[in-house]
Amino acid sequence: MREIAVIGIGQTTIDEHWDKSLRDLAGKAALAAMEDAGVHGVDGLFVGNMMSGSANHQQQLGAHIADWIGVRYTNAMHIESACSSGAAAFRAALMAVGSGMMEVALVVGVEKMTDSPGSEITAQLATAADADWEASQGVSFIALNALIMNRYMHEYGWEHHHFAPFSINAHANAAHNPIARLSSAITEKDYLKAPMISPPINLMDSSSIGDGAAAVVIAPVEMLKNLPPRTEIRVLGSGAATDTIAVHSRKQPLWLSAAEKSALQAYKMAGVSPADIDLFEVHDAFSIMAALSLEAAGFAQPGQGPRLGLDGEIGIDGRIPICTRGGLKARGHPVGATGVYQIVEVVQQLRGEATGTQVQDARIGMAQNIGGSGSNIITHILGRM
Amino acid sequence: MREIAVIGIGQTTIDEHWDKSLRDLAGKAALAAMEDAGVHGVDGLFVGNMMSGSANHQQQLGAHIADWIGVRYTNAMHIESACSSGAAAFRAALMAVGSGMMEVALVVGVEKMTDSPGSEITAQLATAADADWEASQGVSFIALNALIMNRYMHEYGWEHHHFAPFSINAHANAAHNPIARLSSAITEKDYLKAPMISPPINLMDSSSIGDGAAAVVIAPVEMLKNLPPRTEIRVLGSGAATDTIAVHSRKQPLWLSAAEKSALQAYKMAGVSPADIDLFEVHDAFSIMAALSLEAAGFAQPGQGPRLGLDGEIGIDGRIPICTRGGLKARGHPVGATGVYQIVEVVQQLRGEATGTQVQDARIGMAQNIGGSGSNIITHILGRM
Repeated sequence: MREIAVIGIGQTTIDEHWDKSLRDLAGKAALAAMEDAGVHGVDGLFVGNMMSGSANHQQQLGAHIADWIGVRYTNAMHIESACSSGAAAFRAALMAVGSGMMEVALVVGVEKMTDSPGSEITAQLATAADADWEASQGVSFIALNALIMNRYMHEYGWEHHHFAPFSINAHANAAHNPIARLSSAITEKDYLKAPMISPPINLMDSSSIGDGAAAVVIAPVEMLKNLPPRTEIRVLGSGAATDTIAVHSRKQPLWLSAAEKSALQAYKMAGVSPADIDLFEVHDAFSIMAALSLEAAGFAQPGQGPRLGLDGEIGIDGRIPICTRGGLKARGHPVGATGVYQIVEVVQQLRGEATGTQVQDARIGMAQNIGGSGSNIITHILGRM
Repeated sequence: MREIAVIGIGQTTIDEHWDKSLRDLAGKAALAAMEDAGVHGVDGLFVGNMMSGSANHQQQLGAHIADWIGVRYTNAMHIESACSSGAAAFRAALMAVGSGMMEVALVVGVEKMTDSPGSEITAQLATAADADWEASQGVSFIALNALIMNRYMHEYGWEHHHFAPFSINAHANAAHNPIARLSSAITEKDYLKAPMISPPINLMDSSSIGDGAAAVVIAPVEMLKNLPPRTEIRVLGSGAATDTIAVHSRKQPLWLSAAEKSALQAYKMAGVSPADIDLFEVHDAFSIMAALSLEAAGFAQPGQGPRLGLDGEIGIDGRIPICTRGGLKARGHPVGATGVYQIVEVVQQLRGEATGTQVQDARIGMAQNIGGSGSNIITHILGRM
């Protein structure tokens, strides 16, 4: 496949955007990315979104958003894989440009969640699980994660407070990110006294949903010579793997096999190993997922993910900085948009534009986006040339 | 892009499958296509579906169906563009295989619509239109098509009975298709006396929704030498184009610009013209759409689509046979699956397996799948080598 560069990024704040429609948000991010790329048109649009059909009564986001941003008669499609919809849309765009079917592709991740009652959103999030054997039995998404976290603590001897560094790190980084949903740093005391949601998961273990959109523009590397000079950010690796949709069907529910396999694919394609990664945007929907993702991607032994937090290795100056712009926890988690926010953040780091939380001389960055309870996981590795 | 062949097809009957789940249907079609292809595994799964999130409370159909058919740790995603979701999934798979990111890809279109009340499905179908400026004003999908048909009749001087041949042809062909939703031939009298739905559209102008799944397996042509000998069916052309999502935003709502542009792309890529097409699976969601599709794809002058029906040109022995296995009208329209059924039917014709409605010596077939009221249209051309 031909080499592909990320030539533009854009994003909106993540908030309760009650005064903006889905297309307002998507359009704002898309046009910002196109302006950043210095292109006036695109050959294709790939929209990552999970729940607009039910939450916003609008499907067809490909045509919908293309129309809104004035890109007419284009190739446009909506890609969904629950919370990894954003990375899936990015990957679909890579394959489209890689195939030669198009040159410049726009990827937009968008989700508008806060117009609907919370109970409705909880039910809609549960459609990422197994409708017949999980959701319809009353197991919400947070409950599934709570089951996993409980078992993990039991199996490996961790206590709840050992997970505090994930939340503290995310909030500390989000405090420097102007588009973050939550911009206050927190202390261990804040973490420990947070309201319980589904034991052992409390509010500070949980990511914050919201409304937002992020966008990137990609193009073949050979096209860069026709554009104004810029830092070249190349897509080095892409991997995707599914697992059983129901957690109870997995032989080892404490190991994210799909994360491991998608990371290995991405490492192989990029020709790198975990030691080469300068920062890692993990999918910390819940703090347990940050631990499991670090382990599956090769940064910790099985069961030892929390150790990285306790040893100060996940901070901006640590061995493997994670959630450098706040992660799902504090930057926010507009579910279908999250994977695109992660790509935007990796690009910011590689360009040296991550004001306040810049990883020094970052050259290779990774993002991992998790759909369902680990049932569809997509990993990307980007590099500065 | 490297050349791609369709190496396997599978489909379920279209019916009210109240005893089968979404995954039962999808799995049945998928495994049939894999068996037909003679492969035991695939490298990726692309699922076309419009409304499972709201109608079946199940998103994540990529992981969901991959899990069900025993394909673990694969690349899987769900593609949506309303009623053209099936063709969009097929196109995404073409780009995936074309890019070299994978070799064998499975495309499954599935929709399960009849478990929900009709009013709910009508509302969900309206999410393919503009939620803010069409659907929320009470304009259902059929009403939008009725507005278009009314204006078309006024503008070009047609009367309602002039559209009868589209419906009669579809039913006549479906009578030979064992998986069709409606298997009775109808007469002009049946057409004329059918209950009015939204004037001038009556029941016999309207396609029949249903539950069903269709699947195809694609692979690079160079892989065929490793498989048992078979009729080689190659993907010659693929085109996709969007238009404004709202009908009222179009300068000329009686001309399907997206259909024209996607067809021109597909013709160009295939190196053929309308005169080379032996059969055309049109998206006859309503009879007016069959007329508009025939015009936009170059088989009739603007406003003259109904003439082809009246002159007997759309039958199996006509100049341009359409809906050869019953079309949306009578084979049925499980919305997100329809585009994949169309591909299956073109392959049947090119293989010479279209029992009862075989187009003699069919060598090149075309399928056009329409999302929304013409807002996202995808055209594919397949050929027998």
